[in-house]
Amino acid sequence: MNGCHESDIETFLKSVFDLVLKEGVTEINDRTKPVINFKTPSELKQILDLAIPAKPASHAQLLEYCEQVFKYSVKTGHPRFFNQLYAGLDPYGFAGQVVTDVLNTSIYTYEVAPVFVLMEKYLLDHVCHLIGYKEGDGTFSPGGSYSNMLGMNLARFHKFPQVSKTGMRALPRIVIFVSKHSHYSNKKNASLLGIGSDDVIAVATDNSGRMDCSDLKQKIEEAEIQGATPFLVIATCGTTVLGAFDPLEKIADICEDKKLWLHVDAAWGGGVLFSSKYRQLCKGIHRSDSVAWNPHKMLMAPLQCCVFVTKHSNKLVKCHSIEVPYLFQQDKTLYSSEYDIGSKVIQCGRKVDVLKLWLMMKAHGSTGLETRINKAFLNAQKLTKLVEVTEGFELVCKPECTNVCFWYIPKRLRSLKWSLDDDNFCRKMAQVPPLIKEGMTQSGSLMVGYQPLDGKPSFFRMVVINDKVTTDDMEFVIKEIDRLGSDL
Amino acid sequence: MNGCHESDIETFLKSVFDLVLKEGVTEINDRTKPVINFKTPSELKQILDLAIPAKPASHAQLLEYCEQVFKYSVKTGHPRFFNQLYAGLDPYGFAGQVVTDVLNTSIYTYEVAPVFVLMEKYLLDHVCHLIGYKEGDGTFSPGGSYSNMLGMNLARFHKFPQVSKTGMRALPRIVIFVSKHSHYSNKKNASLLGIGSDDVIAVATDNSGRMDCSDLKQKIEEAEIQGATPFLVIATCGTTVLGAFDPLEKIADICEDKKLWLHVDAAWGGGVLFSSKYRQLCKGIHRSDSVAWNPHKMLMAPLQCCVFVTKHSNKLVKCHSIEVPYLFQQDKTLYSSEYDIGSKVIQCGRKVDVLKLWLMMKAHGSTGLETRINKAFLNAQKLTKLVEVTEGFELVCKPECTNVCFWYIPKRLRSLKWSLDDDNFCRKMAQVPPLIKEGMTQSGSLMVGYQPLDGKPSFFRMVVINDKVTTDDMEFVIKEIDRLGSDL
Repeated sequence: MNGCHESDIETFLKSVFDLVLKEGVTEINDRTKPVINFKTPSELKQILDLAIPAKPASHAQLLEYCEQVFKYSVKTGHPRFFNQLYAGLDPYGFAGQVVTDVLNTSIYTYEVAPVFVLMEKYLLDHVCHLIGYKEGDGTFSPGGSYSNMLGMNLARFHKFPQVSKTGMRALPRIVIFVSKHSHYSNKKNASLLGIGSDDVIAVATDNSGRMDCSDLKQKIEEAEIQGATPFLVIATCGTTVLGAFDPLEKIADICEDKKLWLHVDAAWGGGVLFSSKYRQLCKGIHRSDSVAWNPHKMLMAPLQCCVFVTKHSNKLVKCHSIEVPYLFQQDKTLYSSEYDIGSKVIQCGRKVDVLKLWLMMKAHGSTGLETRINKAFLNAQKLTKLVEVTEGFELVCKPECTNVCFWYIPKRLRSLKWSLDDDNFCRKMAQVPPLIKEGMTQSGSLMVGYQPLDGKPSFFRMVVINDKVTTDDMEFVIKEIDRLGSDL
Repeated sequence: MNGCHESDIETFLKSVFDLVLKEGVTEINDRTKPVINFKTPSELKQILDLAIPAKPASHAQLLEYCEQVFKYSVKTGHPRFFNQLYAGLDPYGFAGQVVTDVLNTSIYTYEVAPVFVLMEKYLLDHVCHLIGYKEGDGTFSPGGSYSNMLGMNLARFHKFPQVSKTGMRALPRIVIFVSKHSHYSNKKNASLLGIGSDDVIAVATDNSGRMDCSDLKQKIEEAEIQGATPFLVIATCGTTVLGAFDPLEKIADICEDKKLWLHVDAAWGGGVLFSSKYRQLCKGIHRSDSVAWNPHKMLMAPLQCCVFVTKHSNKLVKCHSIEVPYLFQQDKTLYSSEYDIGSKVIQCGRKVDVLKLWLMMKAHGSTGLETRINKAFLNAQKLTKLVEVTEGFELVCKPECTNVCFWYIPKRLRSLKWSLDDDNFCRKMAQVPPLIKEGMTQSGSLMVGYQPLDGKPSFFRMVVINDKVTTDDMEFVIKEIDRLGSDL
């Protein structure tokens, strides 16, 4: 076995830390370096020596492997990475993650995670307070999809507590309402929970992508007439593509009237709660029954960092706890079993995700986090303006969040009449983004995603998050896309 | 906001790395230091300054917070930590985790995780090969419970593909068979999936905790007579408490005969696949339809590191994929969409858990990992012998795995007749472990768990994993429990 000598291992780990600092921290903001050094799967398979050997590799060889991993991985912390709903890396969050890594424990009992259990409880209370819940409970989770699943499961249990034991067989047809722009996890979760994706009913949106409340009301009533039992509305704060915020106050009125659970998927947009300037985008969120929020998105916490909270204090434990004598001993003498928080989740072992968030909140203070959120909005507004005034760029809709969605029109198409009803025009426009994307990937200059929506041809979605991004970067994005695309 | 100067942040991160090395690597094997510095929840709340401030904390203050986290956290890497089904920390795994942290990406598309997508595919193929699947597919998952849930979901979809769209309403009553010693996640998952925990049918075990196959057959036939539809048997390789391995060949015979999906929960015991000496404990595992295995348990990979594999190559993608134009673009020009592996899982964003496992496999080679597994078994055998020959210790059953389960009998109870049928005797015996546990927690000398089982009074479960553990540590465990308990 490798590493017989402790001091050798220390030296090796120090070399890894040096490499990590260089690649991930010191040089990550160097705009002259590429965001990605792209290789196709077949090229990369040739380069990487993936095979597991019988005998140990040397420390020097292991370091080379690490260097290779850095060389061919995407630099998501680079200020020109705008491809996903995460970007950048908070260094204090990273520090908290490394401390968590080495402490290597699971957050299910106070016995093995005393500090993290108290810290998680504190932070979840803090999030409940930010949302405006008077009381509440919650958990960290492995992803936004998972948090939405928890909301769906609690909502079902709230209305039909017998479901835990007897399953869906004992229930009527139950239906869920989401905006048509809501995240795809809602359908996947309905399949998983045995509800079925057909019973996730899509509600129309307005031109900005927000849920249309008169359509919501109508769809609920139609379902009732068909004999189905509505039990849940999932509203979104910050939709995945357009970044739209559903009108929570109006939706909450309907949910209160119809006695439906309101779950808010604020995985992306929940970050605005930290900004006194933008938190009104989530107005009414305190009236929800549960909320999913991912600090690893807008807040720049390291992946994974996801929070689920509910205003119903005992619902998680009622829904999920079962007797587990080997883990949650009831005859413990040194502390109360309420601190064995594993009983309220579905998982057994659960990764500790709280320290990174807590440490970065300490490091920046609430004012620092507010500054970060406001800066991202400012950059997105700058980009929006540039899109509006630059030839060849066309905004998809006025952004509410820090996603800026736009088409780019190559020179040869600019003389055509702008018409999204014209199939021929749309087909030509749809061919543009994949080619520009290919160009930026090959040059490594920039990473931005694209997609079609509602029958509209593919457009770019620029997501602004990283606090190292400047207004100059916004200008670069415009120039670079124009450079790559004007002659297509 | 904190950390305006990049060089300050580097200095801070270097100090954190120094602390991490000292606390988590250099001093972790020092047996003169406590495994835990226990404080009650109310004491610890007084010590920790959890509140989120408005203004940034200084780097010095942040370092103090990190020091405090170390001071009051459990040292799960300490050679006297035997409390859970994880222990120790592979330093190469840790290095891989830190590299993963700083690269901070999600493994759903090749576009943002090219190296990790290929590496994950390679390692999953490797695991399929170890199991003996001729072909297969899989994914890393956030936990063993989650992996078992994937097995349950695939099994249901395999028999009733319509369930994804129309839910459980369209299905007959479907039932699942597990041994009564199987993990509690199976019940929780059945509740979650809308099957209902009542339809998880417990099968009897033999004296060593292995599934009783004649009872399995009988339970299946009883369910059929009652009009239920069996679809899944979940066997366990390494049960949570006793470490029993269910007889897979016999169970596979029954599953083949009855056309049932066989899922193997090898979260704990799957590590033996790396040992030519002990892999026969999983004999027949190649005949299963799916397997859950957690390298973060017996293999000492850092948490979280969990694998789910199935022999059915296209089942995951068929069960889980839906159209997601914003993420899985079908008109990509540089690589085939088969490399966008996010379409085969339920999650959207997913943490990268492969690099830590891959790097430690490179570092030790397969021979090194085999040595590690064999050493844990050797230590467990040594402990078993000590339990057998030492006065006051009584083995619960001969261990198959590296869990060693035993009672400790204080002096005053040694004159009583040993009778597990005697309620009075059992009540007295059940009071012993919580008090010894309190003693070891207060002194910080040792961490071992305990639980009752099948009406038997609570006993200790020693789990041997960490490769720093020696036979001297096994002797220490015996002496320390005797010291803490003899006069109780």
